[in-house]
Formats: sequence, structure tokens, C-alpha cells
Amino acid sequence: MTGPPGEPAAGEEPAASLSPASRPVVVDAMGGDHAPAEVVAGAVLARRRGVPVLLVGRATEVLRELARHGAAGDVGVVHAPDVVPMDERGAGAGTASSLAVGCDLVRRGVGGALVSAGSTGAVVTCAVRAIGRAEGVLRPALAVALPTLAGGASVLVDAGATADPTPEMVGQFALLGSSYARAVLGVADPRVGLLSIGSEPGKGNRLSRRAAEILPGLPLRFHGNVEGDDVLTGAVDVIATDGFTGNVVLKNIEGCVRTALAMVARTGLAGPAALDEVASRYDPRTHGGAALLGLRGTVVVAHGSSGAATIARACEVAHHLARERLSEPVP
Amino acid sequence: MTGPPGEPAAGEEPAASLSPASRPVVVDAMGGDHAPAEVVAGAVLARRRGVPVLLVGRATEVLRELARHGAAGDVGVVHAPDVVPMDERGAGAGTASSLAVGCDLVRRGVGGALVSAGSTGAVVTCAVRAIGRAEGVLRPALAVALPTLAGGASVLVDAGATADPTPEMVGQFALLGSSYARAVLGVADPRVGLLSIGSEPGKGNRLSRRAAEILPGLPLRFHGNVEGDDVLTGAVDVIATDGFTGNVVLKNIEGCVRTALAMVARTGLAGPAALDEVASRYDPRTHGGAALLGLRGTVVVAHGSSGAATIARACEVAHHLARERLSEPVP
Repeated sequence: MTGPPGEPAAGEEPAASLSPASRPVVVDAMGGDHAPAEVVAGAVLARRRGVPVLLVGRATEVLRELARHGAAGDVGVVHAPDVVPMDERGAGAGTASSLAVGCDLVRRGVGGALVSAGSTGAVVTCAVRAIGRAEGVLRPALAVALPTLAGGASVLVDAGATADPTPEMVGQFALLGSSYARAVLGVADPRVGLLSIGSEPGKGNRLSRRAAEILPGLPLRFHGNVEGDDVLTGAVDVIATDGFTGNVVLKNIEGCVRTALAMVARTGLAGPAALDEVASRYDPRTHGGAALLGLRGTVVVAHGSSGAATIARACEVAHHLARERLSEPVP
Repeated sequence: MTGPPGEPAAGEEPAASLSPASRPVVVDAMGGDHAPAEVVAGAVLARRRGVPVLLVGRATEVLRELARHGAAGDVGVVHAPDVVPMDERGAGAGTASSLAVGCDLVRRGVGGALVSAGSTGAVVTCAVRAIGRAEGVLRPALAVALPTLAGGASVLVDAGATADPTPEMVGQFALLGSSYARAVLGVADPRVGLLSIGSEPGKGNRLSRRAAEILPGLPLRFHGNVEGDDVLTGAVDVIATDGFTGNVVLKNIEGCVRTALAMVARTGLAGPAALDEVASRYDPRTHGGAALLGLRGTVVVAHGSSGAATIARACEVAHHLARERLSEPVP
């Protein structure tokens, strides 16, 4: 069992407690539509699966939720009096908020990673400010693993952290996405596609055309341009794009899958079990959140509507990412 | 029956033959993956449904195809010796190509509209050059009607004509899309959504944030921002965006629907009839093509893989659009 922060868990070497792998995953208990109840429940679930966690938020509320699960003695709590509203973009996330305190715990090395289901904009802004960008990284990027028709997953990056990147930043997103695909999907030499509107290098908008010139010179396996209908085929392992297009596509996928399945359901010719199974694959509550890449520490943004199972999955992903030391400088 | 160009059909007033509604739809017989056979077959089909058509292409090939359908006497043919390759972006579409000759027939008022299944880039470039932009229009936009969960359709505009528009151009796309929704979908007062990454006006990239400031001042019904998962819900009648994002989204929809249905099929728990019915709604060969709005004449771009039925549908759409005089100046 991992005790409160600062105390090495029984049976562990004190030195090991300093490595990112053994440091607890800091969980923003107050972030998300169903915080703190579902977030605390998820943290308890993760803890029971062997992930060390540390909750940050209003201590009395968090302890009350822990007590419901009989877990008050198992999970450490750090008090933070303020809560960042879900419609906050980040500029107003005060230093006493659970989000800011959580980021600070990661910055100081007390926590190995942060998980928050708060507003994506607020998490990105606060994490960049408190944790800082990794050496050489111009802007962070959100990475989401999308299940593909081929059976595996492809990493969409940037899925919404940086809406107006330069072409050089898109090149870095491709590098960060490749590291993520290696670490999380176990792909030895990930193929990178650049999202555009035509497979020829000359097609696209100004940003994608310039990025298409930069990508072949980077230390990654560049496959060339991919189009919107290639995103879920598994044709590439990493789909690099700007955060505006990436976020539109991520949400469009959720909406299209939901619409297609609802239309099939209305025909009355398909069993609900078949539809539920496919729907769950693209439900944002299933995949455990988006990793914010390019920082000096690991941050996972869970969907605002996350329930306990999603938070637990996000904690596992964050723990794994921290162990893989993904927050490395990019070339 | 409409005879060859220049000859008013029997029973029609000569004056009426000058209105866009009675002029034939000019069909680029050589554009598309299955040209000229499927294109000619589609034109014959449209003619038999009462749409006056005029084929442009290599006369011997086109006449041979017409003869197969016993329609050599029913459809006029204008000879054009050259063919624009499908990977051509347009700059190289010579004046002797079927596409350029077809555009010129529309410019001269011989034809009321153009249908081509050639490369979208080539059609856009050639149509702008030959037919010209409508008064006040800065750039043309492609409009596609997408079936929605609500049962109707929403117009996605721009779906790929102008990859790097200014915010003012996006405002014009919204106006053109509103006219299209009124004319084609019969929506009296179309609601317009701006595609972005957050429903608040301050969210988005530079382009969408600035467009969000312009849209409320235009003579249209602005609903506010919509996100990627709103595209198929029917929340708005018109979804305005730049041609890069719009084309990525259009193709992403095709890919997502295909993937979701294939995943359902693999479960073995759904009848193929249910899946085929939904698949056909989002098949680019079904909807009859994208309308190129903002020109001095009507142009419909059919999908490159179009078969006869799609070409026929595109001719009907083009005929209807020409009758609705959609190529009007924007405010």
C-alpha cells in the first residue's frame, strides 16, 4: 500500500519512491461533471488495481467519499480549497484550486503524473504553466488512441491542445505521437500520416502543405498524407494534425459512430448487444482520456463526463506513461 | 425531347429556352473513374427522367456509348478532344478538355449548369476561371447535404473548394449555404452553426474565432458554434467552416460510418439489410454530388467513383439548382 505523499510505501526501497514509476498518480478530485464522487470512486478502483494514487481537493468532501468506499486509510489526500469551474479555460485557475495544487505536486516530484477530468482548456493552461514544457517542445499536444477497423489503434495528435500551431509544431506533434505509439501501443516503428485533403504532398491548406515538407526530415517513419476517411482504418499508427482539426475530428468520430448505430437501431434489424459493443469502443468515457504530451511531467485529461471506471482507466494510463518516461525532450 | 444545343425543343417557347431552367445540363462525359461509360449512362437516365442534358467529350466515344443505350438521337453532343486526368488539380486543364469546353458552354449560356465527376480541384479551378465568381463573392464553396439523425439534412459548406479562406469568406460560405438550404432542402429560415472546438464564442482557432465575430452581423440566422459531434444531429441546417476542415470532416464521416457498420457486421448480430440501408445514406455515390456555390453559373461536382445512378441524380440536382437561380450575388 502506498501511504500519504512523502512516505515511501512499506516494502519499497526509498530510492525507488523517487522514480516516476513509484510516485503516486495525482488525481484532481474536484474536476469533472461528476466530481468528487465518481472521481474518488475511480481513484479507489485504480488503487485496488495496484496504481498508487493521491487525491487533491476539498479534504472534507474527499475524505467523506473515501469513507463510503472504506478507503480513507488507503489513499492520501492533499487539501485544496478551490474548484476550477468546468467552463473555465484556465487563465482563472487560481493557485489554491485542486487543479493547480495537483499540477504543483507533479512539478515538485511528489506525484508521478496528474489525472484530471476538468475542462481541457484549463488543464492544458495550468499544466503548461505549473509543470512546464519539456526541453525543445514548442507547444503541448493531446494524444488520443482511436480503435481502428484493423483491430489495433491509431494515435490522433493533436486532439485539441494547440488550436493554431506552426508547421514546426505539427512536426513535433508527430514526434510526440510516435513516442506515445511506441510506449502505449507497443508499435516498434510507428507509421506517421499527416491529416490533409488529398494524398499528394501538394494538397492541403498552408499549414498542412508546409508540415508535409518538414515531416520527411524528422526522425520518424513518414507515410505521407492521409485523409479524413483513413483515420479509423489503421493505415497509419499516428495521425498528426493541428489541435483545431484534431478536436473537430475526435468529436466528429464520436458523433458519427453514435448516429450510424442509432440509425441501424431504428431499422429494428440489429441486436442491441452488437450496437452497444461498438458504441462503447468510441465512447469518450471508455478510452481513459487523452495524454497531454510535451510537458516535463505526465498529464492525462479524462473526459468531463467520466465515471469511476474511466477515471480508474485514466490513472492506469497515467501510471504507465510515467513509467515509460514519455516526458522526454523532442529532437 | 430536347434537341442539340441551340435548337429549342419542340413544344417549348424559344424565349423559355434562354432561361437557366430550360437550358440543358452540360455533362462532362470524360470526368470520373468510370468515364465515359457510366457518365453517359447517367446522362441518358437523367434525360429519360425529363432533365435536358448535353454531353461534352470525345464525340466518337460518347456517341458509341449513347448508341448502346439507343439514345444517340435524344442527347446532344459537343466534341472536346482532350481529357483532364483525375489527378490534375486544374491549372493544366487545357481549353480543349471536356471540362473546359463544358464550363465555357455554361459561361456562354448554352448550358444552364455543369455536372462533372472529374477531380474536384480541377473542376473548381476551371469553373472559377471560365464561369467566374458571382458578384461580391470572394471565393467559391462546395456544399454537401448530409443526412442527419433528426431525419432531414444539414448543409456542410465549404466541403473542400477553398482550403485557406479568410474569416470574411467563411461568412460568405454561411450565406451561400443558407441560400442552398432554402433552395434545395426547403428550409425557410435556416439555422447556421459555425464549426469550432467549443460552444463558447471565444473558443476555436484564429479563423473560427474571427468568423464567430462576423457571422452575427450577416443577414442569416446564426445559431453559434457547433462541434464535431453536432454535425449529424440536425442541430443546425447549415454548418459553416473552411474548406480544409470541411473536407476532412466530410471524408471522416464516410470513414466513420463505414467503420462502425463494419464493426457491427463482424459481431454477426445485425442483419445486412439494416447495415446496407444506413451505409447507403453516407455513401458519397448516393447524395448526387456537391454543389459549387458562389459562381455565375451552376456547377455540381459528382464523386469520382460515380456510377450512372449518381450521375443521373447529380444532373437532377444541377437542373433544380439552375432553376432556383442559386448563383446570385451575396450581400
